[in-house]
Amino acid sequence: MAPRVLVIGEILVEIMATTRGHGFAGPIDLRGPYPSGAPAIFADQLARQGIATAMVSAVGDDDFGRLNLARLRAAGVDVTAVQIHPTATTGTAFVRYRPEGGRDFVFHLADAACGRIEPAAASAAEVARATHLHVMGSALGAPRLAQMILEAARHIHAAGGTVSFDPNLRPEMLDAAGHARLAGVLELTALLLPSEGEALALVPGAPDEDAAIAALTRRGIEVVLKRGRDGATWFGGDRRIEQPGFAVHEIDPTGAGDTFGATFLAGWITGADPAASLRAACAAGALCVMAAGPMEGASDPARIRAFLAEREAC
Amino acid sequence: MAPRVLVIGEILVEIMATTRGHGFAGPIDLRGPYPSGAPAIFADQLARQGIATAMVSAVGDDDFGRLNLARLRAAGVDVTAVQIHPTATTGTAFVRYRPEGGRDFVFHLADAACGRIEPAAASAAEVARATHLHVMGSALGAPRLAQMILEAARHIHAAGGTVSFDPNLRPEMLDAAGHARLAGVLELTALLLPSEGEALALVPGAPDEDAAIAALTRRGIEVVLKRGRDGATWFGGDRRIEQPGFAVHEIDPTGAGDTFGATFLAGWITGADPAASLRAACAAGALCVMAAGPMEGASDPARIRAFLAEREAC
Repeated sequence: MAPRVLVIGEILVEIMATTRGHGFAGPIDLRGPYPSGAPAIFADQLARQGIATAMVSAVGDDDFGRLNLARLRAAGVDVTAVQIHPTATTGTAFVRYRPEGGRDFVFHLADAACGRIEPAAASAAEVARATHLHVMGSALGAPRLAQMILEAARHIHAAGGTVSFDPNLRPEMLDAAGHARLAGVLELTALLLPSEGEALALVPGAPDEDAAIAALTRRGIEVVLKRGRDGATWFGGDRRIEQPGFAVHEIDPTGAGDTFGATFLAGWITGADPAASLRAACAAGALCVMAAGPMEGASDPARIRAFLAEREAC
Repeated sequence: MAPRVLVIGEILVEIMATTRGHGFAGPIDLRGPYPSGAPAIFADQLARQGIATAMVSAVGDDDFGRLNLARLRAAGVDVTAVQIHPTATTGTAFVRYRPEGGRDFVFHLADAACGRIEPAAASAAEVARATHLHVMGSALGAPRLAQMILEAARHIHAAGGTVSFDPNLRPEMLDAAGHARLAGVLELTALLLPSEGEALALVPGAPDEDAAIAALTRRGIEVVLKRGRDGATWFGGDRRIEQPGFAVHEIDPTGAGDTFGATFLAGWITGADPAASLRAACAAGALCVMAAGPMEGASDPARIRAFLAEREAC
């Protein structure tokens, strides 16, 4: 059966400051709206790899919602189960890079359409059709949405499907209820895509990250550790594969981890060699950071191949 | 007793497209956040005229809220009764001017902090202290907020205070409940500040605007008809005073009507000659449209006098 991947979570627009600085204390130059939201970035890139991909989410009945739907449709994402909320507006995130690194945000998410995703006939149909669920930890912060995701994960897993999980940990998720949700997803996870430090947070009692990853692989989970510009490492059973990062001129790292993850999953789900998938995923991450805007550096397989061919020719 | 004016209503930030066009279908250059909200623009300009002014409103616990509070405090507005909502975000309005005139908006207001203004001890204290209430029709769209405004108007009126009213009519307000709210405010109004066409909408059965204004003045209401770049007309009893507009290079008309109204009220409430108040108000409106951003062209009496002196010298 051809794989069909479902992603449940937030869709929003991002408004980016064009100069570095601290926060939004007065009028500055901005650029946007850019289509965004970690689950949407992931779904967009995955569909571009030729994998059947659907989203369950909600947007407002406004230009920001229409912009996102048009973008996802153009990438080939099935948005049948993306609700258009009658009153709530599409989520927004204002972001400004600080001079010394780090970012300041102003988020409108919890009260936005994407904070009010409700189970519906269309979303149930997507859960029934999916062979794989990708879980973005960012979407687990909202209790009702977390419940929907956990139920979908259990259903797809019970039907013989698989689950991948990008923890995308946020400090506010790490209360007791948050830990319980993470553990609930982890129990069903076949492929984990943590950033540095996240594996340790997911394995209570592990002395260090190596030990945490070893504990996870002993449970049969494949782990792909994302190390940003330094590349990534794949762990499966007793094996590991290192992939150094590609040196590029970084314009905007937003979305690079999601783009990396989607590209890796596209290989994983079709049984590709992990080393090749890892290499393609690092290339996709590098292509992402070379463009301003979360999805503006999205790439299809031809673009990734061309990037890799260029690097090999050096 | 020295006048003290209360304004109840929305505070928000405005994000402006820097190029003309239609809506927000993709990333464009923007500038913001600008402090905004019709009631806030009005309060800011009124305080700058030296009139004691307080606001009842709500902002989020975010940079956009802090930006607005800092701005209002700097103008001298008492913001003691502006609540900082624990979870809702500060309202936002994205605006883009169309090539042929008119504007496209994306609003986040109803679910924002300013859509959740709640009666509180601080707001009751402001109602008790105020000698005048200015009502912005834009704030009457939300039923709960409309209720607070009507109660404040009744209380201040019963205590011997006065009420001014800028209808700021929006089509969605003109259902039966909306008409009842408008009529409830109008009943208590001493000074009405309509734009063209609004007087007619407020007087059911009037054959034309002149007849509607005549009906209002017969009820003892002073009417200041705002005609944008064409100036304004004051109507009181059987008298009328015309003030032509000042020709200026218009950059952004946002906030001009609110700035005009506040400047007129500052004269009205201190017993100034209506002709002089009208002239100052038209000057303030002209100064407002010469700057991008709703409050960026705010003016104090010295600036208004300088503008008028310059015009007289021509």
